[in-house]
This record gives sequence, structure tokens and C-alpha cells, in this order.
Amino acid sequence: MVGSRLERQMNFIFELERLKVVYRQNGILGESRHENSAEHSWHIAVMAFVLREYCGEPVDIERVLKMLLIHDVVEIHAGDTFLYDQEKRDAVKEAEAEAAEKIFGMLPDDQKGDFLAAWREFEAGETAEARYAAVLDNLQPMLNHCFTDNLSIAGKGLTRSRVMEKKKFIGDFSGELWEYALKVLDESVKKGQYREG
Amino acid sequence: MVGSRLERQMNFIFELERLKVVYRQNGILGESRHENSAEHSWHIAVMAFVLREYCGEPVDIERVLKMLLIHDVVEIHAGDTFLYDQEKRDAVKEAEAEAAEKIFGMLPDDQKGDFLAAWREFEAGETAEARYAAVLDNLQPMLNHCFTDNLSIAGKGLTRSRVMEKKKFIGDFSGELWEYALKVLDESVKKGQYREG
Repeated sequence: MVGSRLERQMNFIFELERLKVVYRQNGILGESRHENSAEHSWHIAVMAFVLREYCGEPVDIERVLKMLLIHDVVEIHAGDTFLYDQEKRDAVKEAEAEAAEKIFGMLPDDQKGDFLAAWREFEAGETAEARYAAVLDNLQPMLNHCFTDNLSIAGKGLTRSRVMEKKKFIGDFSGELWEYALKVLDESVKKGQYREG
Repeated sequence: MVGSRLERQMNFIFELERLKVVYRQNGILGESRHENSAEHSWHIAVMAFVLREYCGEPVDIERVLKMLLIHDVVEIHAGDTFLYDQEKRDAVKEAEAEAAEKIFGMLPDDQKGDFLAAWREFEAGETAEARYAAVLDNLQPMLNHCFTDNLSIAGKGLTRSRVMEKKKFIGDFSGELWEYALKVLDESVKKGQYREG
């Protein structure tokens, strides 16, 4: 990669366009198209501002936002992987790490290092900031399914207990958010989006 | 609006889904659909991290991000207005102010006040943070037009000088970003997206 510092930055910014055509499993309101990872990332970033009072300890919101805004850009090369397809999620780990090197490697070295560190922190899920980010990333699809009345998720054959198993870490972070998430889950089961059991 | 504090916050978060179906004038890469205001907001928020070194004075990046992430949510009620349709832009001002009261009014009062203040700061465009946010908001569509090779913008009959007139405030903020923007503009004129003149 050659070019001036600003050219490298702008090439990275151009490249981000590609996340707008990485589509997720869930739909959007009143439309047949699926949600893409760019608008999903926007949604959880706004949520970070709205729900910060539910963090049990102080979090660096700038750090949270950086993680949320870039956590999915590896999908430009590695694609989106369904949360419940654990086999594929394990298999794609290496491809995602390579994708992170490639896409953040478009930037000048200092910024590459900075974004890579944020991406790895999110993936490791150990800091309070990474845990809050993971909570938001997992809460938003539950809200989306319920609110958009989208029945495409029903075709995945998910049960209430399977969703609870995947999402219960939300409760370790915030009892209030988990209690709310369970109400949303009940509503989604009633709507036929997930099966009882 | 009744309900507990968390219910109000979640109702606002649900409502944000609607920004994903507010479509802008420009397209996205390789697709026939237009860009929506949610993914546009995500794009400029990442840009805020990447280009912060071009701010001539220190900026509070958390403030910039808050403005960028919520500056367009009034469009849920007021719709997107084409940058070059000044008559419509003037006419829609009042509707946008009402929309801001309505949508941020879904939140608890303290958060309503906080988001309204950020939205008004962005609209006023006076602080360094608001000016940086406006630069990003105006730079991204120029990059998008050029990079996506989308010719739908050509139908708007825009000329190089009209675009320059609207965007030249970028140069007051950063000579380097403006110099780059002018190169992108040249390329877009070559591609037939804007007319010479």
C-alpha cells in the first residue's frame, strides 16, 4: 500500500462502503431487505449513549464507541456469521483475524495498531468496555426481531432456551437489562419468532 | 409517554429502527438501492476517529460522535432533504425542530435535554465539534458518489462550481481535507457525475 498518510486514510474510508452490502440474518422494519452490518453498528452505537447508566462500573464511552463502530468491518472480507452457527463461527475466526490485518492495514501504522487493538479487545470480551459492547451487540437483534415483526427468523427453528443460553451473559452485566430482554423474548415467542422449549 | 425509565429508553431505541428506511439521494456500492441515513451516520462516525488529526484545535470526540450519530434522527419524522434544494431545506427547519422535540422527548427528561442540546449544537455549527461534524457529514457524500460510480446523481444536473460553493467551508476547517475533496470532485466530474462549469 503506497500513498500519503491522508490517501491511506481515505482509501480505508472508501473501503468502509462495502460494509453497507454485508447483510445480516434479521430484517428491517416493513421491508423485505435484510439489515446490513453498517446500520446495525450505528444502532448499537446510539444505544451505548442511551444505556450507559446500566453499566455497574464506569466505562470509557469513547472506547466503547470505537469498538462498536468497527467490530464488524472484518465482515467486508469474512462475511457475517449467524450467531447460532457455532461450527461456522469457530471456523471463521482465522479468516476474521486475517481480515482485520488486511482492512486496518490500509491505514497508517499508528492507526492500524489502534483499531486492531480495539477489535481484539472487543473479541476478547474481558474489559468492562468490551463487555458493555457485547451486551449492546446482543441486545439489539432481540429488540429488532420483536419490533420489526419479521418472521424470517422463525425459519431458523430457534427455541426460547437456545436464545436464553446465548444471551444470558447480558444478565451478568446488568440485571435490569436482562429482565427487559426476557420480556422482549416472551413477546417474540408469542409472535412465533422463536419456538417454546 | 408513560412507562418506567428503562421502558422509555427502549421505546426510543425501537424507534431508531425507522431511520434505516429513510433513504438519501445517493446510492451504495454495486446496488440499486439508495443509502439510508443510519448507515450514512455510521460511516461518518468512523471517519471522526480516522480524520481527527486534521482538526486545527482539540475536539471532544465523544461530543462529535454524539452529534454525528443522532444528527439525522429527526428525518424519521421530517424526511431527508436534498442538500442543494435550499427552498425545501429552509421550509423543513420547523418540522425538524418539532421532530427533535418529539423523538428525543421519548427519552427521560435528562436524556432528552442532552440529545436535544447535541442536535441543536450540530445545527448551529458554531463549536469546533459541530464544525468538524459538519465537515464529515459533507465529505462523506462526495467520497460516496465518486467511489460507488453511481450515475444517479448526474440526473440532478449539479455543476462543479455549485458543489464547490456548498462544500467550500470544509477548506475553512482544514486545507488538507479540502485539497483532497477537490481531487475527488475532479474525478467525479470526469466520471460524469457533475457537469463542468
